[in-house]
Amino acid sequence: MPRLPLRRCAVIATLAALALPAAAATRAEQAGLVRERALATSSAYALLSDLTNTVGQRLAGTEAEARGRDWAVKAMTAAGLVNIKIEAFAVPVWQRGLESAEIIGTGQRLTIAALGGSGATPAAGITAPVVYFADYAALEAAAPGSLAGKIAFIDHRMMRAQDGSSYGTNGAVRRAGPALAQSKGALAVLIRSLGTDYHRNPHTGSTVTPTGVTPLASAALSLPDAELLARRLAAGPVSVKLVSTPSFDPVGQSANVSGEIPGVGAPGEIIVIGGHIDSWDIGQGVIDDGAGMAITLAAAQVIKASGLQPRRTIRVVFFGSEEIGIYGGRAYGAAHADENIVLAAESDFGADRVYRVSSRVAETGKPLIAEINAALAPLGVAPTRDNSAGGGADVAPLGASGAGILALEQDGTRYFDLHHTPDDTLDKVDRVQLDQNVAAWATAVWLAASDDRALRTK
Amino acid sequence: MPRLPLRRCAVIATLAALALPAAAATRAEQAGLVRERALATSSAYALLSDLTNTVGQRLAGTEAEARGRDWAVKAMTAAGLVNIKIEAFAVPVWQRGLESAEIIGTGQRLTIAALGGSGATPAAGITAPVVYFADYAALEAAAPGSLAGKIAFIDHRMMRAQDGSSYGTNGAVRRAGPALAQSKGALAVLIRSLGTDYHRNPHTGSTVTPTGVTPLASAALSLPDAELLARRLAAGPVSVKLVSTPSFDPVGQSANVSGEIPGVGAPGEIIVIGGHIDSWDIGQGVIDDGAGMAITLAAAQVIKASGLQPRRTIRVVFFGSEEIGIYGGRAYGAAHADENIVLAAESDFGADRVYRVSSRVAETGKPLIAEINAALAPLGVAPTRDNSAGGGADVAPLGASGAGILALEQDGTRYFDLHHTPDDTLDKVDRVQLDQNVAAWATAVWLAASDDRALRTK
Repeated sequence: MPRLPLRRCAVIATLAALALPAAAATRAEQAGLVRERALATSSAYALLSDLTNTVGQRLAGTEAEARGRDWAVKAMTAAGLVNIKIEAFAVPVWQRGLESAEIIGTGQRLTIAALGGSGATPAAGITAPVVYFADYAALEAAAPGSLAGKIAFIDHRMMRAQDGSSYGTNGAVRRAGPALAQSKGALAVLIRSLGTDYHRNPHTGSTVTPTGVTPLASAALSLPDAELLARRLAAGPVSVKLVSTPSFDPVGQSANVSGEIPGVGAPGEIIVIGGHIDSWDIGQGVIDDGAGMAITLAAAQVIKASGLQPRRTIRVVFFGSEEIGIYGGRAYGAAHADENIVLAAESDFGADRVYRVSSRVAETGKPLIAEINAALAPLGVAPTRDNSAGGGADVAPLGASGAGILALEQDGTRYFDLHHTPDDTLDKVDRVQLDQNVAAWATAVWLAASDDRALRTK
Repeated sequence: MPRLPLRRCAVIATLAALALPAAAATRAEQAGLVRERALATSSAYALLSDLTNTVGQRLAGTEAEARGRDWAVKAMTAAGLVNIKIEAFAVPVWQRGLESAEIIGTGQRLTIAALGGSGATPAAGITAPVVYFADYAALEAAAPGSLAGKIAFIDHRMMRAQDGSSYGTNGAVRRAGPALAQSKGALAVLIRSLGTDYHRNPHTGSTVTPTGVTPLASAALSLPDAELLARRLAAGPVSVKLVSTPSFDPVGQSANVSGEIPGVGAPGEIIVIGGHIDSWDIGQGVIDDGAGMAITLAAAQVIKASGLQPRRTIRVVFFGSEEIGIYGGRAYGAAHADENIVLAAESDFGADRVYRVSSRVAETGKPLIAEINAALAPLGVAPTRDNSAGGGADVAPLGASGAGILALEQDGTRYFDLHHTPDDTLDKVDRVQLDQNVAAWATAVWLAASDDRALRTK
């Protein structure tokens, strides 16, 4: 045996101790051992690197997302999960075409990314005067018909917020802004990206068009480009030539993938954890949401490898087609509404540290949440503030059916520098933060899976 | 008169004091007043903003560079310069076409930027296996003919360095790497960008092809893309499809633009200061080198507006077509070799602080450099280390003809995050640092222009 530094020996001793059966330690001791094993194992980065290297972006409904599913099955199998299932559902498929924008006269190019679900210009593009709106409220105030023949530019600004709340506040600009401008006659829409970085990184994301309406062309400008356009408009009239030729196929397919560590004792009580498979096309799908898959699968793997046997079933679910309208989460919620899913938790906010616990469980479950708070405190995680967590997009339908919700809130301070941009790449992952994140998940999931207190809210 | 804060009043009192004739103060006092006026005036940012808003990128030899010249004439006129001249010269014109790269099999897109002067693939692109070279030395060691039918990938890494020295060390990768790989049979070349940022920002720049050789297609990968490709190659063979269709016109035109504050006393002794007009096409030409034009013109403007009369002529020269091979600097050096240019100084390293003085002047000029060191010390600028400065690319030919060289070394710590990338945009300018930079220039130029000691080295 090679000589190891003392610290390494201590870790090995700790892991050896983990081979003890669950009954040999208190719940707090077990949680501590799972937490330390997770930190010592550090397996999420390898998963994320493998996903990035061999698959890359995974746009919803495309062949790339299908390769993401194949990867998911292989990764779950390798992690020792069983009962692996692929559950298909129908999705529309939107794919980016050619896209460009330039200011007429100077020919200054504007860096853009078409919004998911947006419509197309003619192949030769459109050229039209730009009308400035400082924010969504200003667009709401525009008179009916006043945008006829114009390109509306919504320059709404989003600030950095650790908890991502600014995305909630400003999301309407992207989701509803284009349709609102269209209802007032606009030919096309440009928005300042919902983002916090100052790189030539437009932030894409889905936009919503009322049923029966053919969507107009809409695209996000990077912040430097939005600010150039705003400065130009402040100095006088500006026309822009916009080309965006996405395609749309209403009949496509996606799927959810799941695998389990079956419970011993109460296998019918299910804890669902996971992230989403699909990503936007312009990045590499690392932070959003390769990280969520890697974190939750690594957490399950740590529990599986520890030799501890959970009382409840731990089910890892990787959702399909989240980005284009939470198709996977809604399909899963509908198909599994009658199952006894006692707790659901998703990871979909990057790869940085978990900084706070959040929950929505039955009164009987609150002592479990207190245990989780205590077990995560050594990782620097703050305790639950209240018991009203919504859970993320994909697990919200399960929550609505009565599943308890656990949310391990991640530090999103830099998330919107990367979210939905070309810059969502592997180098952005901070491995120390990622390991902390996995440790928080493994610890919390172990405590919930080895527990017997009722968690469902109805 | 509106009520002003005390500090503002102090500035106004200082500026009023500057109206005194030069004879009324010591040289050190005059230098101090120029320095403080520059800090209070803060005019470079407005120049840079105007250039960015109304012109944008200015690729060498193109109509955009011509609009940059028009801007230069207007800006020099507005600054009160006289004897404005446009001196034309011939340049080849290279323009980017369509460009894309993807990994065969997974379809992972690689973000690229064709190198200036590079050749074209067929419109449909080429698909070939990639051969990895960790650095330039590894490529040099490759056997003749060994790259036949292959795409060479040079993964040479460049580190951050305040003085930009790492660009000097690594520049051969971009300038000579493609031709070297071509000499060994390569079909095309990809290089890891000469850059220090981790955004999807490829760094373009010129590459050099031996006379009589048709250049191959070559392009820079952003660092995240270079690292993805390197990870893929470490795992097994990789083929890439590369499309790059630049155009090349050997017969184009560019020009240098100059304007003067004529000297009173010794108008035939000329101090040349300036930056370059042209920029790469993928950014907006702010840091490189709109900043150099704005800094040097703002410095001249401060001196002009101060009411002080320089003994020597201060000539601001904006050079054309620097990026594609220092065409402007060479043309200027050849046309003005016989003029009595006593000192030449260029600003071409961004918009951050001046941190050190550097020079190459006659022994008789050393006391002037000591005065400059003393006058710049309050700005935090370190004194000259030796008297062997090369000057920048555009003024080097003047230096070779005997002009003294002054180099106000700028802090380039973040320069290669932005240089030659889409991210060279106005928002990257730190106005406090820019003002310090202009103050250093105005002060140093005033001291040199009001002096009578010999500076030329031959």
